[in-house]
Amino acid sequence: MAAVAADGRILRRARFETPPRPTPAQIVHRIAAAWSEVVEGLAAADRPAAAGLAAPGPADAPRGVLRQAFDWGWRDVPLAALTSAAIGVPVQLDNDVNACCLAEMRFGAAAGVQDFAWIQLSTGVGGGLVCAGRVYAGAAGLAGEVGHLVLEEDGPPCACGGRGCLQALVSGPAIARRYAERTGGAPGAAPAVFAAAADGDPAAEEVLQAVARDLGRGLALVVNLLNPALLVLGGGVMESLQARLPAVRAALRARVIGQANREVAVRRSAVGYDAALLGAAVLGTRSAGQP
Amino acid sequence: MAAVAADGRILRRARFETPPRPTPAQIVHRIAAAWSEVVEGLAAADRPAAAGLAAPGPADAPRGVLRQAFDWGWRDVPLAALTSAAIGVPVQLDNDVNACCLAEMRFGAAAGVQDFAWIQLSTGVGGGLVCAGRVYAGAAGLAGEVGHLVLEEDGPPCACGGRGCLQALVSGPAIARRYAERTGGAPGAAPAVFAAAADGDPAAEEVLQAVARDLGRGLALVVNLLNPALLVLGGGVMESLQARLPAVRAALRARVIGQANREVAVRRSAVGYDAALLGAAVLGTRSAGQP
Repeated sequence: MAAVAADGRILRRARFETPPRPTPAQIVHRIAAAWSEVVEGLAAADRPAAAGLAAPGPADAPRGVLRQAFDWGWRDVPLAALTSAAIGVPVQLDNDVNACCLAEMRFGAAAGVQDFAWIQLSTGVGGGLVCAGRVYAGAAGLAGEVGHLVLEEDGPPCACGGRGCLQALVSGPAIARRYAERTGGAPGAAPAVFAAAADGDPAAEEVLQAVARDLGRGLALVVNLLNPALLVLGGGVMESLQARLPAVRAALRARVIGQANREVAVRRSAVGYDAALLGAAVLGTRSAGQP
Repeated sequence: MAAVAADGRILRRARFETPPRPTPAQIVHRIAAAWSEVVEGLAAADRPAAAGLAAPGPADAPRGVLRQAFDWGWRDVPLAALTSAAIGVPVQLDNDVNACCLAEMRFGAAAGVQDFAWIQLSTGVGGGLVCAGRVYAGAAGLAGEVGHLVLEEDGPPCACGGRGCLQALVSGPAIARRYAERTGGAPGAAPAVFAAAADGDPAAEEVLQAVARDLGRGLALVVNLLNPALLVLGGGVMESLQARLPAVRAALRARVIGQANREVAVRRSAVGYDAALLGAAVLGTRSAGQP
């Protein structure tokens, strides 16, 4: 939760913990408390006239309904209206990944770009699409599930129940698991694999080269299908993978058709960890009737 | 080339041969001759006030420029203006696959559908995308290259120079090649493989089951990325594969995330072989300033 200025500066922020499988009332209560904390610390002229909400699941943005929040067990919750009633200003809701796309367009690496995909590499792998200048959510708000593009028919199991998904090959837990399989050790955490590679561990190096290649393979699917001008990569895994972007690009370019596709730009997110927060602020400007 | 009524009826048509690697002047000359043949046979009231052109490559539709025609060796040809000068009516040009999408929306299986992918299964495998009610061409007119989504890293070689592309697994020539590899014979043509399967040839049956599964795998990539409401499948291979749509759907559903994605409709094209022709007619209505 934050108050954000028109230029993207964060004026004041508050954090709150989310209990496991919260009810809508529990979430709205925490939002309202954080809202008070943020607003009360602001000068009167800086108090927001509207709010945006980046929700963890597919959303019906025009109706303000969170269609589904998988981790919370929610379905069709009118979260914008509930939140607006609690905080007293209009609330515009959208999916968190779509919000990240908006932040990257307004403040980040995709400023002025009409056609791009935004991909988050973290514990999971998610994505959002911007087509002809608009966030594209698909028929039911599910577009951009880059993490579940299947790269290997009999590949490693994925959290989704499938096998060989991009997420099962390049997410943080996947990197840790690949290194453990390679070395016969117990799975640790991805940062340890990056640290080991930096220390010259050949097994870690080999795993990270495979991860960069697999990421390039996955991105090639996005590029062949959508012909974006730009791919923006964010998330903690991306921070560590950044030195390997040339290998990612090479794997991508070898698998796409057409010169324009080979020339797609691949950039690191410029809004970083605050992407969803800044995107919510962009959503807020929309609910206030601004462009 | 055809004159098409507002309801999609073909009033009169003419065909012409395309020489190998034609010049723009050769193509425009043939178009003008066919145009005369069509128009002269029509009642005065039916004579078209405008024309549409479905071109074999990525197009800059607003400028009427054919950016590239791979088989013809063309680059940046202002084909709409050249054709308009030759036939004396306004001409609106777009890529042929985008035209097929328009035809399917106006007259076919995608009437009223806002989010769909159109996929042509023939000698090659191509596709077009409709996102939020509009044909989506990507940043450089290359979107929808479904045929070059890589399904198998070390799979069979593809006409694009890559390996394991969807086209290298499910196109007509790919089906013939897979059967020849399975039986040790010389590659024939895909219709012979369908005929053999219908006659109970177990090798042909096995190949076609693998083709249906691979097609479902490729479609799953499209669905996970775009969350369309509908996939429309056209082309000669699709005609023969139609009895195997349940197997295609099962392979698709096993590889997508989210209930809405599993429920995506998969339908045969309703405009068939005339898709590009009817789509050109839809383009023509646009150049005449109609909706």
